[in-house]
Amino acid sequence: MSTDALDSDPELDTLYADFEANHLNPLWTQLGDLMPMVPTSKAVPFVWRWSTLYPLAQRAGDLVPVGRGGERRAIALANPGLGGVPYVTPTLWAAIQYLGPKETAPEHRHSQNAFRFVVEGEGVWTVVNGDPVAMCRGDFLLTPGWNFHGHHNETDQPMAWIDGLDIPFVNYTDTGFFEFGADGVTDDSTPDISRSERLWAHPGLRPLVGLDAKTSSPIACYRWKHTDAALAEQLALEDEGFAATVEPGHAAVRYTNPTTGGDVMPTIRAEFHRIRAGSHTRSRRDVGSLVFQVFDGKGRITLGDQEHSVATGDMIVVPSWTTWSVDTDDGIDLFAFSDAPIVERLHFNRTHFPEHA
Amino acid sequence: MSTDALDSDPELDTLYADFEANHLNPLWTQLGDLMPMVPTSKAVPFVWRWSTLYPLAQRAGDLVPVGRGGERRAIALANPGLGGVPYVTPTLWAAIQYLGPKETAPEHRHSQNAFRFVVEGEGVWTVVNGDPVAMCRGDFLLTPGWNFHGHHNETDQPMAWIDGLDIPFVNYTDTGFFEFGADGVTDDSTPDISRSERLWAHPGLRPLVGLDAKTSSPIACYRWKHTDAALAEQLALEDEGFAATVEPGHAAVRYTNPTTGGDVMPTIRAEFHRIRAGSHTRSRRDVGSLVFQVFDGKGRITLGDQEHSVATGDMIVVPSWTTWSVDTDDGIDLFAFSDAPIVERLHFNRTHFPEHA
Amino acid sequence: MSTDALDSDPELDTLYADFEANHLNPLWTQLGDLMPMVPTSKAVPFVWRWSTLYPLAQRAGDLVPVGRGGERRAIALANPGLGGVPYVTPTLWAAIQYLGPKETAPEHRHSQNAFRFVVEGEGVWTVVNGDPVAMCRGDFLLTPGWNFHGHHNETDQPMAWIDGLDIPFVNYTDTGFFEFGADGVTDDSTPDISRSERLWAHPGLRPLVGLDAKTSSPIACYRWKHTDAALAEQLALEDEGFAATVEPGHAAVRYTNPTTGGDVMPTIRAEFHRIRAGSHTRSRRDVGSLVFQVFDGKGRITLGDQEHSVATGDMIVVPSWTTWSVDTDDGIDLFAFSDAPIVERLHFNRTHFPEHA
Amino acid sequence: MSTDALDSDPELDTLYADFEANHLNPLWTQLGDLMPMVPTSKAVPFVWRWSTLYPLAQRAGDLVPVGRGGERRAIALANPGLGGVPYVTPTLWAAIQYLGPKETAPEHRHSQNAFRFVVEGEGVWTVVNGDPVAMCRGDFLLTPGWNFHGHHNETDQPMAWIDGLDIPFVNYTDTGFFEFGADGVTDDSTPDISRSERLWAHPGLRPLVGLDAKTSSPIACYRWKHTDAALAEQLALEDEGFAATVEPGHAAVRYTNPTTGGDVMPTIRAEFHRIRAGSHTRSRRDVGSLVFQVFDGKGRITLGDQEHSVATGDMIVVPSWTTWSVDTDDGIDLFAFSDAPIVERLHFNRTHFPEHA
Repeated sequence: MSTDALDSDPELDTLYADFEANHLNPLWTQLGDLMPMVPTSKAVPFVWRWSTLYPLAQRAGDLVPVGRGGERRAIALANPGLGGVPYVTPTLWAAIQYLGPKETAPEHRHSQNAFRFVVEGEGVWTVVNGDPVAMCRGDFLLTPGWNFHGHHNETDQPMAWIDGLDIPFVNYTDTGFFEFGADGVTDDSTPDISRSERLWAHPGLRPLVGLDAKTSSPIACYRWKHTDAALAEQLALEDEGFAATVEPGHAAVRYTNPTTGGDVMPTIRAEFHRIRAGSHTRSRRDVGSLVFQVFDGKGRITLGDQEHSVATGDMIVVPSWTTWSVDTDDGIDLFAFSDAPIVERLHFNRTHFPEHA
Repeated sequence: MSTDALDSDPELDTLYADFEANHLNPLWTQLGDLMPMVPTSKAVPFVWRWSTLYPLAQRAGDLVPVGRGGERRAIALANPGLGGVPYVTPTLWAAIQYLGPKETAPEHRHSQNAFRFVVEGEGVWTVVNGDPVAMCRGDFLLTPGWNFHGHHNETDQPMAWIDGLDIPFVNYTDTGFFEFGADGVTDDSTPDISRSERLWAHPGLRPLVGLDAKTSSPIACYRWKHTDAALAEQLALEDEGFAATVEPGHAAVRYTNPTTGGDVMPTIRAEFHRIRAGSHTRSRRDVGSLVFQVFDGKGRITLGDQEHSVATGDMIVVPSWTTWSVDTDDGIDLFAFSDAPIVERLHFNRTHFPEHA
Repeated sequence: MSTDALDSDPELDTLYADFEANHLNPLWTQLGDLMPMVPTSKAVPFVWRWSTLYPLAQRAGDLVPVGRGGERRAIALANPGLGGVPYVTPTLWAAIQYLGPKETAPEHRHSQNAFRFVVEGEGVWTVVNGDPVAMCRGDFLLTPGWNFHGHHNETDQPMAWIDGLDIPFVNYTDTGFFEFGADGVTDDSTPDISRSERLWAHPGLRPLVGLDAKTSSPIACYRWKHTDAALAEQLALEDEGFAATVEPGHAAVRYTNPTTGGDVMPTIRAEFHRIRAGSHTRSRRDVGSLVFQVFDGKGRITLGDQEHSVATGDMIVVPSWTTWSVDTDDGIDLFAFSDAPIVERLHFNRTHFPEHA
Repeated sequence: MSTDALDSDPELDTLYADFEANHLNPLWTQLGDLMPMVPTSKAVPFVWRWSTLYPLAQRAGDLVPVGRGGERRAIALANPGLGGVPYVTPTLWAAIQYLGPKETAPEHRHSQNAFRFVVEGEGVWTVVNGDPVAMCRGDFLLTPGWNFHGHHNETDQPMAWIDGLDIPFVNYTDTGFFEFGADGVTDDSTPDISRSERLWAHPGLRPLVGLDAKTSSPIACYRWKHTDAALAEQLALEDEGFAATVEPGHAAVRYTNPTTGGDVMPTIRAEFHRIRAGSHTRSRRDVGSLVFQVFDGKGRITLGDQEHSVATGDMIVVPSWTTWSVDTDDGIDLFAFSDAPIVERLHFNRTHFPEHA
């Protein structure tokens, strides 16, 4: 079928006009765009530098108040391929959030699932359904859908961290609800660990209250000391000759829901990867989109054909089916999150390991 | 926080310009659009008439050849709210497909999940992985993701039917793969029932080959006689005084995967509803989008504030969180499909029954 | 460690006596019995003849009334290896039940799961929670745990059928509850099919009432015409060159719970096997115990080293890990039930195919 | 139906004799025993004293060597109601195992699931598939079915602990396999924590190797410090006014499989309960059998109508459907294990809270 030939036919022109008038649209003229041979994301691979992000957040801290209405002083990563919408990937939203000394971000809740990851600083507590959760370097915090949450800074220093949400996905699928809560936070105490952790963050143990499988993890915060220890042990076991790492020099943990063993939230996967000095990861590409933040160290990440040097705080987006690998001379720690639970629960997951040249 | 005040600040203007230059985007200026209080779909409620659809399909049959490249003579319903993209809802694609006498639509496969529903006509066989499946009025056919399929018309009459796919969702999430197959169909025989049905379409029985849970239903076609009988029995049981219907006068079945009891495919739910003469359904709204096709009879469907008279073949779209109800003087049969499996597997499902005035 | 040496030691004798006095028991003297190298059932392979069973049931019909207290005129198969207890295997109970003209077996319920299978006759209705279920040759009926049920014979002819329950398992694990119900049956109407079937026995369809996964199948009766058709289709597909049978000449279906795709009840699996004239099954042994009833035809079943000729109505028990195979000159139809769901849900399942000599 | 009347009938006597000769057994004469109204276990409530158990184990240590054949110096609790078989309940086996200075119990594996719980002492390593696991007071160790395991004592002191297995269940259901392994242990190193723990015992984290759901927990040992901390936190949260305990003064954790959130092994549930000084538990009875060992403190346990004073090391058996409660003046710590996974996976579970007098 030659579309050139078709296009010059006046009867056909009338037909196409009639289609349009009746809110119809022929498949045959646009099949390739609608159904490409492999995932062809509009999103592009990109790197945001911490050295850019943090100063801009500071300037926003000076100029923009935080409070009811705007809700959060969060600056979103807008993937350059997505035409200006504030989405880091088609499904994921990622931002740097900044809270000045003694500031409070008021409570609200929404069906969107959210997490925080702290690359530097401390002194803010996120209050989740009345449970204050200290935020410190390396901690991974959850506020799953429809839990009230606010943030307050108890110190004389500002603090910034990374937020990750499924805002684009929820917006696109028309599944979002939002509700305002208290203007302050409902508990301004400042414990070292949350009640949630005291109940749930014991290895392999669960309380006898609430024995069902929960939609999202009941652990409000995954502390750095545990993540760090788990990664260190994997590399130590590798040194001792035992299978423990993903591949030589590459330790990794997944944050999980202890009531199911699965992902922490229905739409977002989170992992932490440690790549030993002098090591590299195997090139791979997966269906679904992925974001890294360098937590520590430095290295090079190859995205498709292009290599980027990255260092602490830098954020890297890997669109669906983009080949990526990391290598490092000095060692690198990477926090990672993705939409893999969406892809896997709907059975679209595939992984491909390109041949090495 | 007054955005008016903020907007007039030159320092702030510079900040916002710097955001944009660095592919960043503040949350506080756009929160309401990104995270509305309830689902606020761009898609609008709409009705397409069979009396419009079918003649346009016929004209396409006369003017547009079917074959490799365009692949299918399918004319998609383009929701008027979605800016011209060929999507009936943000997640779903629906089209009338038309195949002339002796025509063949060549084989291909894709990760998108697809079904066909036949509102009139017969004489086409869909060949799924080499298994010919007759298409007749009232039949519901599956071609789950990554199964090769083609269509061929063995008669001297054209035939049209409805296709439903998750093309928008797959496109949006960058999860699609596509592969061409045979130019003809791999088996041009014309049995009354498919091998798949002979193996799998026996109530409560499964063959001892393939005892695992399958991602999608192995039943290639759900025949009208079974659907009709199931609905008739529900109404008869209601007449006899037993609980069998959804509500008085409203019988309904869900098409299921016999290996799990769940939906036929990971992303698409399909149901059939029969509303008895003089009955109506309770007003409701759900998270997720829904499409009806009138299979038989006529009635009125209320979408939000607006009532539409509908008759055989008409297609009606109900965007997420839109209140709908049906009432009928003479009885109406409705085929329905939706993205409910996506919504439910990711735990965004909610239903609301508005109070009656 | 020589147990001979140990046994002659007086200090040890005292120790063993002290063990006994304190309700203790050393492992080391009895390990082999407690933990054999492979399953070594006390139950033995055995065949009961229909030509024996049926006349004995008739005599019981003449001599023993049926009614409240004894509840059922059921004569249980007592595996000769099990020391006189009325268990066909360690976990399963099987009996021939006999109901004379116009007799009624009163209603009761129990946590034990039960089924009936009809090898000949008709005219009895089993009433399950008030739903009358006709019993005819080849039908497989369920009364899952804690459903009230009674039987009544509406004809002038007696009728006999097979009952299968998990009585031994429930007795052994102390999990049984029992409750008397109505002295008659709560609905003495005699429809051809039950309301349960009218709601649930449509291939791949489920009513929109009760959309959860159910513990046991909601289908009260799996009719012979469906079972027969499914088996006939498998053999026809085999003849046409397609994969449909377990092995050449061996068709088989499993009865399933349409809300899960799994077994009909939590403790009992039921299947139907058809072996074509001139065919045989591959020798195999499985963990778990299995009972066959010949439904039609005749053949030879090999149990361990011994071959038995079997014909319609004969019942054959295959204890755990006993090698079995069937061959037939004229074709044979076999109903089968087992404790496989217990074994599989607790992850003890293994299968072994011995090499052919 | 009067069984007296029936018994005196000579025709009936002949019938019953014919039943017996043909390995058949009438239901109506024994229904009450086979299918009681509520679970009526042959097992009885009973208490074994640590002050009895430990000295007898010591004497066995002096008199009975440990090694290949007898395999383990384990002395099983024989429920007085079960006629001398070495079963603590119909489904569970429990024993005190004793290993002298420098002794080794050789490696083997079996399909039976096993755990160890340490009420006093240390110095033994259990080697599970080559991974040495230190045993210390309060630790709970797993050797799930078909994992090779041996024990070796590296000290000059003997050590005793509790073994729990599903030997009776496996024996009864004919599901057991057994295989001998190395005569010594395959790794005689003595690390403080096992490799399994280094990989898996981090709260809410799992390694990226082996992402499937595992049949049994991959955590070889649940250390006392975690159990103790989890219980202490629950009571502290209760003191602070938050819901964290089962009931006032009663903290409890369940040991879980981190890959599923469910029980550690398919047949055995294990929990730890701490009852605060001056508190008591609510009377309850459950389907399934339960065993406690007092880990610390003392109190009174009421089993049916009888109250028993219990102290450290004492073992208490609660047969199915036996009402029990605990109260304590000084506080008590209780380790508990049961067959609840069997009962729940087969849907026989029920719980009843008797009214307080």
